[in-house]
Amino acid sequence: MNTHINCSDGKKLYSLLKELFPVGRSITGNGVRHTLARIKKIIPLKVREVKTGTRAFDWKVPREWNIRCAYIEDEKGRRVVDYKNNTLHIVGYSVPVDKRIPLEELQQHLYSLPDQPDAIPYMTSYYEERWGFCLADRVRKKLKKGMYRVVIDSELKNGSLTYGEYIIPGKTSEEVLLSTYICHPSLANDNLSGIAVTSFLAKWVGCKPRRYTYRFVFIPETIGALVYLSKNLKTMKKRTIAGYVLSCVGDGRGYAYLPSRKGDTLSDTIALHILNHAHPGFKRYSYAERGSDERQYCSPGIDLPVASLMRSKYGTYPEYHTSLDNLDVVSPDGLQGALDLYKESIELLERNDRYRSTCLGEPQLGRRNLYPTLSGDEANSEAYRDTRQLWQFLAYADGKNDLIDIAENLGVLASDLYPIVDTLEAAKLIVKCTS
Amino acid sequence: MNTHINCSDGKKLYSLLKELFPVGRSITGNGVRHTLARIKKIIPLKVREVKTGTRAFDWKVPREWNIRCAYIEDEKGRRVVDYKNNTLHIVGYSVPVDKRIPLEELQQHLYSLPDQPDAIPYMTSYYEERWGFCLADRVRKKLKKGMYRVVIDSELKNGSLTYGEYIIPGKTSEEVLLSTYICHPSLANDNLSGIAVTSFLAKWVGCKPRRYTYRFVFIPETIGALVYLSKNLKTMKKRTIAGYVLSCVGDGRGYAYLPSRKGDTLSDTIALHILNHAHPGFKRYSYAERGSDERQYCSPGIDLPVASLMRSKYGTYPEYHTSLDNLDVVSPDGLQGALDLYKESIELLERNDRYRSTCLGEPQLGRRNLYPTLSGDEANSEAYRDTRQLWQFLAYADGKNDLIDIAENLGVLASDLYPIVDTLEAAKLIVKCTS
Amino acid sequence: MNTHINCSDGKKLYSLLKELFPVGRSITGNGVRHTLARIKKIIPLKVREVKTGTRAFDWKVPREWNIRCAYIEDEKGRRVVDYKNNTLHIVGYSVPVDKRIPLEELQQHLYSLPDQPDAIPYMTSYYEERWGFCLADRVRKKLKKGMYRVVIDSELKNGSLTYGEYIIPGKTSEEVLLSTYICHPSLANDNLSGIAVTSFLAKWVGCKPRRYTYRFVFIPETIGALVYLSKNLKTMKKRTIAGYVLSCVGDGRGYAYLPSRKGDTLSDTIALHILNHAHPGFKRYSYAERGSDERQYCSPGIDLPVASLMRSKYGTYPEYHTSLDNLDVVSPDGLQGALDLYKESIELLERNDRYRSTCLGEPQLGRRNLYPTLSGDEANSEAYRDTRQLWQFLAYADGKNDLIDIAENLGVLASDLYPIVDTLEAAKLIVKCTS
Repeated sequence: MNTHINCSDGKKLYSLLKELFPVGRSITGNGVRHTLARIKKIIPLKVREVKTGTRAFDWKVPREWNIRCAYIEDEKGRRVVDYKNNTLHIVGYSVPVDKRIPLEELQQHLYSLPDQPDAIPYMTSYYEERWGFCLADRVRKKLKKGMYRVVIDSELKNGSLTYGEYIIPGKTSEEVLLSTYICHPSLANDNLSGIAVTSFLAKWVGCKPRRYTYRFVFIPETIGALVYLSKNLKTMKKRTIAGYVLSCVGDGRGYAYLPSRKGDTLSDTIALHILNHAHPGFKRYSYAERGSDERQYCSPGIDLPVASLMRSKYGTYPEYHTSLDNLDVVSPDGLQGALDLYKESIELLERNDRYRSTCLGEPQLGRRNLYPTLSGDEANSEAYRDTRQLWQFLAYADGKNDLIDIAENLGVLASDLYPIVDTLEAAKLIVKCTS
Repeated sequence: MNTHINCSDGKKLYSLLKELFPVGRSITGNGVRHTLARIKKIIPLKVREVKTGTRAFDWKVPREWNIRCAYIEDEKGRRVVDYKNNTLHIVGYSVPVDKRIPLEELQQHLYSLPDQPDAIPYMTSYYEERWGFCLADRVRKKLKKGMYRVVIDSELKNGSLTYGEYIIPGKTSEEVLLSTYICHPSLANDNLSGIAVTSFLAKWVGCKPRRYTYRFVFIPETIGALVYLSKNLKTMKKRTIAGYVLSCVGDGRGYAYLPSRKGDTLSDTIALHILNHAHPGFKRYSYAERGSDERQYCSPGIDLPVASLMRSKYGTYPEYHTSLDNLDVVSPDGLQGALDLYKESIELLERNDRYRSTCLGEPQLGRRNLYPTLSGDEANSEAYRDTRQLWQFLAYADGKNDLIDIAENLGVLASDLYPIVDTLEAAKLIVKCTS
Repeated sequence: MNTHINCSDGKKLYSLLKELFPVGRSITGNGVRHTLARIKKIIPLKVREVKTGTRAFDWKVPREWNIRCAYIEDEKGRRVVDYKNNTLHIVGYSVPVDKRIPLEELQQHLYSLPDQPDAIPYMTSYYEERWGFCLADRVRKKLKKGMYRVVIDSELKNGSLTYGEYIIPGKTSEEVLLSTYICHPSLANDNLSGIAVTSFLAKWVGCKPRRYTYRFVFIPETIGALVYLSKNLKTMKKRTIAGYVLSCVGDGRGYAYLPSRKGDTLSDTIALHILNHAHPGFKRYSYAERGSDERQYCSPGIDLPVASLMRSKYGTYPEYHTSLDNLDVVSPDGLQGALDLYKESIELLERNDRYRSTCLGEPQLGRRNLYPTLSGDEANSEAYRDTRQLWQFLAYADGKNDLIDIAENLGVLASDLYPIVDTLEAAKLIVKCTS
């Protein structure tokens, strides 16, 4: 891997994630605004508001939801469940309620996981009016018969959906899409990790001139992607050459890849090349196992080339969508590994040109001091390995093979060939092929 | 598998097969006429006669052959071999004979199988004048020295070749060919099973309006296929989109598939999809192992998309082409399984459309009561499986994937998706793509 | 394999190789001229001289090098290393020297192999002026402190590079290239074997009229290929349909295949078909493991369809590029096997036509005495195997499949089908398809 990677990024990523963990986010509302404001301190994000009722293909932006407090009190006034202890305690988009009801009636509004008795599940009901509390099954089992006061001080009103966008213009208008979702409350791997890694990645991309234009998008999942696409579809279909959804990029238990619907886009080629060579133990999922905004980006008629590189994929790790997906699940190393992987991918996207040898036949490398002049055992010697790669590169530089093709022919990671490309270009032995 | 399948078909199939078993069939003659007359009670078959000497590509229709009786008598007048006990006793197309000859001369005209001493082999000599008897090797070994009277009361004369045809017009003129051969005498799996299953399949196809036109053909093997093709080639080449040869579809020892010559026609796609998902233990043969009328249908210049779905393939089971291929080899269950497989194939042919989602992005299934409004653990729950298939279907409905493509992406049998197609079409969420 | 192969070729090949073994060859000079003169006794070779300084793409023909004698003498006048004992003792292209130096200084000019203490390494320095001796490490270790006289009586002067060419015109101008290198001194498998086998192969090709034109080339490696290409590129690019580099074709330890850069040319198809069927244990290398003149022939912009069929490939056997690659490594059987393989390949190149059946449907083989008229158990009988191949051939003769395609469908070596092609052509049942 490259030396440009700053080893202290992991700690900074973890620290940002920790800071945003307690914020109560949903698909609309002030939690999202607060989160985007924090990201704005890292990158010059444009924050956009889209009004309730605005159409997005088959959907409409729902009413805005905010919540001040929520709890369940027993007969003695003890709060047995309290939103301020964990934002997962409330079913997202719960309507306001304030009444006393017996345990039997309360049970209709409670959600817990008998198989994970200490975990609070994550539940939402965006498009159907409901109220409900989520709690650990162990706590639920201890509730005694009697009356309970349930209070949800929430508000559903015409307002807006909020999202963030940061476009970094490149030398060409061809675009790379990087999208993450900001609607999940206190869940660390899914998806505060995505928020943190995407922010730092955007900062890194913006630090120097780039070949491609980069479109970073921070949106609520599903409705946000649909709203964003409905506003930008024409441009994105025309310009997007690659893209990734950043989700679940915080734990250290390995790497995962989810392909685009077509499976053979540039995004897929880049991802598979790097994973196969640098992380050969990665898990490969099929598009049928998708679950995040690639569902919209890759849908029929939209057809963007969007894949996903992850750590432990949503739906596959035991803490998923529960209060156990907390700050212990993610780690500085886990976050850093994911950030590095995305940096590598972008670096390779930028450098994946087709090259053509400028000579017919092999050039005489010896007279350029690029090959030993005493021939004997070059073929087998460790000492000549770099020299040999240079010679090998030329053999495949036919103007049709791109850097990844050449690397695959040689069985190496493409980034290992960057110095060789530089040497050969400097010696005018290869030229980049345009179009 | 679908519920339209009538479980008592197996017994009816077996009963028809049993009725036709004793009839002495050949490539011409009254045995074939009798067989076709019986089928005519099930479906409105057109019976055609083609005169001796008629050209069929490189071939000519041979003289018509009929036989009244045939036997070998020993010196004491005991009939040691008698055609009336088993139609296999006579080499098909034997010329008439009536003479007394010594055992040594008789031996030149006897055929038996030392490795299967109780089996009478099935032999023919359509295009070279001969006479001969087939018998169990155990019986042959017991023949004593002496004189024998051999009588074959047969007739070879200018007449005709007889075949049956049943065309069921569909909404389009695109055709599906179903072909079986009717020339084998008392052999159960090969191919009374084909005669029975094809008759019942034709009846089932004719019971309701169909999209495609169906061409059912009951012919003597090889010469019949050539005669039929020489009369109908232009139409068949223009219209045939799929086809199968029905042969050896009666025993219960598994399923087999023989591809078309090209191997990737619609017939092959349908067959492999169903067998892979519904009968994964099936045996897959290569076209080089063909043996029935696909030899003509797929031959260079004819090039029809014809494959074969079988039970135990000809040439691969121990009773093949002997008197042991009798009513014990086939079974109601064996016949029914093959009939069901062909029904499934035709159903899928008729329904294998390409579909296109009518929305950009995912449609909002929740407001159509097609998806749970309370989101939590849909991804893992058994309860949401059907709902998920509906949602999955939409993700692949891009107007290019047909039903089988979508089913393969989802790892399911296409027929499992029929109810999902119906639901989505009713909700106007997908449309069929024409052309 | 075919019967045209003369079993005594192996001994003749070995004898030629033995005769040429002691000659001191390099990329220029009299050793090469001597070698080509000997080949001229076998085939009517044209010997060409190309002047020092002539451009060849990125290269120039170097000065011509000749050597009379070379040795190292100790203080007592004993020759501890002497070129006349083994041509490998001198680093190729060593400049002249005649002086007395102490052992420490001498060591800077000595080359040996500590891992192979009895082997003299093969070293050259064509494009950088140097002098040096190669010797067995065991001998080197015994050198005592003291003064040594080093004498290299060599000459580097403007002269020429010498190569041989033999073009055998065929019915068409489409060409097959057979290239071998003549610059290695006393090394048997690499590449006196190539010189011997190429000479005998050329003689065999020239013995009868051929369909294709054959271009046999005997050149010094690398610079010779570049010189040759620079003179003939336009013609070769236009005409060459297949080609092989003959290298390391003398030992008996198996067969090896190195593909062309594209990997799917006619040369590759022919080679893989024969090796897969006739020598299934062969070793398959990738183009990244190339090392001889395919490096030039297949280079970007030159793009000739050139592969390599070998015995033990250069760089992979323990004796490679040392004095151990001597007359014990190669054998008459090893040489003959390689010659036979190349003969088979050329025979197949010449015969690999596409065929089309002249009948629609199967022809009636019985009336042509090409198939048994008594049908019974043909499918299983050993006796009918040839008959069946004939029948199988027809089934695939669609005018698109060539002979190799048909052989691959039938799972046999294409040459096994030559008699079948002859029979079917004679019976006018197939025709060759042109273009």
